[in-house]
Amino acid sequence: MMQLLADRIRKDGVVKQGNVLKVDSFLNHQMDIELINEIGKEFKRLFADCNITKIVTIEASGIGIACIAAQYFQVPVVFAKKSQSVNIDGEVYSTQIESYTHKKTYEVIISKKFISSDDHVLIIDDFLANGCALIGLIELVTCAGATVEGIGIVVEKGFQSGGEVIRSMGMRLESLAIVDGMNAETGEIFFRE
Amino acid sequence: MMQLLADRIRKDGVVKQGNVLKVDSFLNHQMDIELINEIGKEFKRLFADCNITKIVTIEASGIGIACIAAQYFQVPVVFAKKSQSVNIDGEVYSTQIESYTHKKTYEVIISKKFISSDDHVLIIDDFLANGCALIGLIELVTCAGATVEGIGIVVEKGFQSGGEVIRSMGMRLESLAIVDGMNAETGEIFFRE
Repeated sequence: MMQLLADRIRKDGVVKQGNVLKVDSFLNHQMDIELINEIGKEFKRLFADCNITKIVTIEASGIGIACIAAQYFQVPVVFAKKSQSVNIDGEVYSTQIESYTHKKTYEVIISKKFISSDDHVLIIDDFLANGCALIGLIELVTCAGATVEGIGIVVEKGFQSGGEVIRSMGMRLESLAIVDGMNAETGEIFFRE
Repeated sequence: MMQLLADRIRKDGVVKQGNVLKVDSFLNHQMDIELINEIGKEFKRLFADCNITKIVTIEASGIGIACIAAQYFQVPVVFAKKSQSVNIDGEVYSTQIESYTHKKTYEVIISKKFISSDDHVLIIDDFLANGCALIGLIELVTCAGATVEGIGIVVEKGFQSGGEVIRSMGMRLESLAIVDGMNAETGEIFFRE
């Protein structure tokens, strides 16, 4: 667990009914760049033994974290695009992702030009809950014949199934903070040690 | 003009029919973080005299550039969200933006919590063409009573009206590269000096 992050979630995270954790004051609407720099450094420390050639994330809230982290790995970032937001021609890898938040399925794509079988990929995202977005990203990367070296997540909701599913796939998944429970009455947040 | 950027656009930008300039290999799908770092530094140099308290951008492709630039200004980033992608409660500033690329209008919002009348804002985005997105962002910031100190754009299409409209509003607009014309037959790109 990254203590600085857990402390910040305790201080500024807001617990809502329905197991909703709002971290939009520092992570995914307003972004505290100093904190995200520390997050980037921590990802580098955790994956220092991997020979990463590319960081892959998904729009929108993963992009800033991936870009800051990429400075420590000195590799390019490729962000998967939601296809309706796309002005891309040529060949793409594509997959369907079900969004729990928005209650719909959308197509996500990466241009074939930007990921190859030589790539050793670190996938980065801000949140892991049911894992749908992450499984989609893993699919895009493996379709390209690239290797997923690891997955770096800022906040994992440990009481949802995503983390278990991804780990049972044999993936190396590092979540900087795992929230095992929340109490919307008291505002308490319980982290996995 | 930022020579390093212009050289990169000449080298890796692709001109398509219909005045389309693709820079997706280094700016808005795959991101060359080293280049974006230089872009961030250049924005800091250009707006060094402004007392910026916050950088505002819009999802998705502005976020990475804004976050890297924010390291030089040591301020938070706030990115405006397309409302369909929103899991936000509470009060928001909202506006409509017409997308030429996607041929539709969408709502864009910023939570009232993250922008105030004390803020001196630098708006950053990757592209300026007809200016619709940028005018929407200016509207959100001014609705909050905050001051737009400046606007930093990576690539301006000088042959579309956005730049002129924004400058005629009295805004301080700095575009790192202004493309005044393109030739889809030869692939040539003409920059404003």
